[in-house]
Amino acid sequence: MNFPIKKKTNNNFINKANLGMQLENEINESNNYYITYDKAIIYKKPTPVQIVKVDYPMRSKAVITEAYYKVPSTTDYNGIYKGYYIDFEAKENHNKTAFPLVNIHPHQYTHLQNIYRHGGIGFIIIAWNHYNETYLLPIKSLEKFWKRMEDGGRKSITYDEIKENSLLIKEGYNPRLDYLKAIDYYLENNPNLIILKDDHIH
Amino acid sequence: MNFPIKKKTNNNFINKANLGMQLENEINESNNYYITYDKAIIYKKPTPVQIVKVDYPMRSKAVITEAYYKVPSTTDYNGIYKGYYIDFEAKENHNKTAFPLVNIHPHQYTHLQNIYRHGGIGFIIIAWNHYNETYLLPIKSLEKFWKRMEDGGRKSITYDEIKENSLLIKEGYNPRLDYLKAIDYYLENNPNLIILKDDHIH
Repeated sequence: MNFPIKKKTNNNFINKANLGMQLENEINESNNYYITYDKAIIYKKPTPVQIVKVDYPMRSKAVITEAYYKVPSTTDYNGIYKGYYIDFEAKENHNKTAFPLVNIHPHQYTHLQNIYRHGGIGFIIIAWNHYNETYLLPIKSLEKFWKRMEDGGRKSITYDEIKENSLLIKEGYNPRLDYLKAIDYYLENNPNLIILKDDHIH
Repeated sequence: MNFPIKKKTNNNFINKANLGMQLENEINESNNYYITYDKAIIYKKPTPVQIVKVDYPMRSKAVITEAYYKVPSTTDYNGIYKGYYIDFEAKENHNKTAFPLVNIHPHQYTHLQNIYRHGGIGFIIIAWNHYNETYLLPIKSLEKFWKRMEDGGRKSITYDEIKENSLLIKEGYNPRLDYLKAIDYYLENNPNLIILKDDHIH
């Protein structure tokens, strides 16, 4: 029996509320994989919320009835991998030709610089939706483009610049985004990070 | 001119909503001090909230009108110090003679054990309110008492056991709770933690 049913696809339907959630879901799934297989312990921080009013209805749990989103003071994700402190922000880029630096808050940039100085690994994950590619941009590479902006230059990073200065993250079934592989490569090619660490320890 | 005014003190007044907030405030203040003086970068994670309903009134920002507290999957605080990943939970103990282990969720205990295995520093800060003393209990010391409970023994840690197995945190004006000093002492006396780290790096 063969019923040729023409499925109605929803591919062109964009749910605005979910815009920007795809990368977050992929990272969360990858983090679950890493925790399950004991590779790393990395979590997304909860969304910061200013709670104003809480009701305690009888026989049920507390209900927050008035609250507001707060500006995050740091980045979205942190944790530990191979003894290193890991800290990053994740952004989807819907622009085809460049990644606008306005996507990164100045205090997040400063935070990632501080993490680096203290011996941690700080970076940005950028999903370049137009090309279906995801990149890991270490904070020291971001610094170049941030300083260029501060010096009055362009306020974005071009696609070619990202390709030259970032690590392409391998996509797969599980983990969805294997960004630890990119960190391994980064560690192998940045022995000075380990020296910074040893300086701290001894 | 000398007006002898007898101040009405509020010392015996306990605001129930603030019960348990004193330790949190002291740790937050200490963390601010550490960040300001560039000693460490440690933050409290936002309270996890399940957001159910959000209103968008015209000309004003989004208002969350229905949300619920979620059980935290990890601990309250994490960050970086001397290149080490730091992760801890903070608890006030209102009991005079013992600290009940029911204060620590099993998944928090497991999380801190995982952090240790990955080369991080995991611990509990316990404010023993009756004696006005605050202790740092490393996860490996907590493990002894946790296993005793699992083996059918007592479900708490006595005051004497805490004194023997924890590091007393120096209290002062600024930082209010200098727990990094306790971590320094811990690092000096736990060289195996550094060996674990080196194993990971090489």
